[in-house]
Amino acid sequence: MKPFLIGIAGGSGSGKSTVAQRIATGLGAACAVTLDMDGYYRNLTHLSPEERRHVNWDHPNAFDLDLFVSHLSELTAGRRIERPVYNFAAHARRDATVSVAPTDVIVVEGILLFVDPRVRDLLDLKVFVDADSDIRLVRRIRRDMQQRGRPIDEILEQYLSTVRPMHLEFVEPTKRYADMILPRGGHNAVAIEMIVAKVRDRLTEQAS
Amino acid sequence: MKPFLIGIAGGSGSGKSTVAQRIATGLGAACAVTLDMDGYYRNLTHLSPEERRHVNWDHPNAFDLDLFVSHLSELTAGRRIERPVYNFAAHARRDATVSVAPTDVIVVEGILLFVDPRVRDLLDLKVFVDADSDIRLVRRIRRDMQQRGRPIDEILEQYLSTVRPMHLEFVEPTKRYADMILPRGGHNAVAIEMIVAKVRDRLTEQAS
Repeated sequence: MKPFLIGIAGGSGSGKSTVAQRIATGLGAACAVTLDMDGYYRNLTHLSPEERRHVNWDHPNAFDLDLFVSHLSELTAGRRIERPVYNFAAHARRDATVSVAPTDVIVVEGILLFVDPRVRDLLDLKVFVDADSDIRLVRRIRRDMQQRGRPIDEILEQYLSTVRPMHLEFVEPTKRYADMILPRGGHNAVAIEMIVAKVRDRLTEQAS
Repeated sequence: MKPFLIGIAGGSGSGKSTVAQRIATGLGAACAVTLDMDGYYRNLTHLSPEERRHVNWDHPNAFDLDLFVSHLSELTAGRRIERPVYNFAAHARRDATVSVAPTDVIVVEGILLFVDPRVRDLLDLKVFVDADSDIRLVRRIRRDMQQRGRPIDEILEQYLSTVRPMHLEFVEPTKRYADMILPRGGHNAVAIEMIVAKVRDRLTEQAS
């Protein structure tokens, strides 16, 4: 059976991870696996420490899209992949990978997921998670302070210099490729329930 | 069984009627009926012909929202209603009404459907149909010329003086109340199929 690929895109702090997680939980761990595009950042070990500090993580070129596309194709064809794991502190891929088996449903997430037409073609359902820009900024500030201990001035500087312009240039325009847009981010029980119901239907159909 | 109310909102020319129709067709005529908020325009027979020409059809005050809410409540309670029919030429309700029986699913549509909180509370699923503003304008021009024989200068004048400002002030902000937003208007097979599947599930559950 060809796995069903659900793509979840949306800006930083939109709640796309929450949506991805809720869909995967709704379907049951046995049949769904989540794949984050974040693992596919390029190796940047050749850059100086100063250059690394100014990496634009929100530009499509920051990702190894060829590897990402080939992994999605492999999963679609029912083959196992070795997912890369990124070390953000070192700007490099770790040596260790995570083995991902092709389950019935694969939930793929990433801010720039709908930018590459090859990726869009591989996805069976494209969901864009939306939230107001100020709410997304609040979430980003909280996350970066709590989880990464970053100072507020650095967070705001990065937001203004790369996160926001890249959002407007690359993330926001991909909304039009979505099959559906979810407002209110992860707090949208009706829509999440609908997606889960639809995928369950499809699994039942294929099984019978 | 309490009918399931699906609300379809969206700007003029967004394709919401197409979406409403496809959902109703997908569910089968026996279980779905479509109710258009357009029938609930206020009687404006007291206005002079000149005043009538300048009616702002895109403002919430143009609708008899109390009657609309009471009809939705009646349908939800499983009771039949007499839907008003509007004569746009005379700016008045016709004497004849259309009897609407409470089917399993009621698809309700209207540009300003999500403005009134009472209406929002009655809807089980809220869908906002979206399309780029220029595409909506193209559709509106074609429809008004072909179906109503209106001259292009009058269509554009009305678009700039009422349709567009009312869209920005009243229609666009109600997007945030939607459970899902459908881009590409009526040409969104994946999302429409998903809505139909979800409602069918619910009907099956209730029947068993």
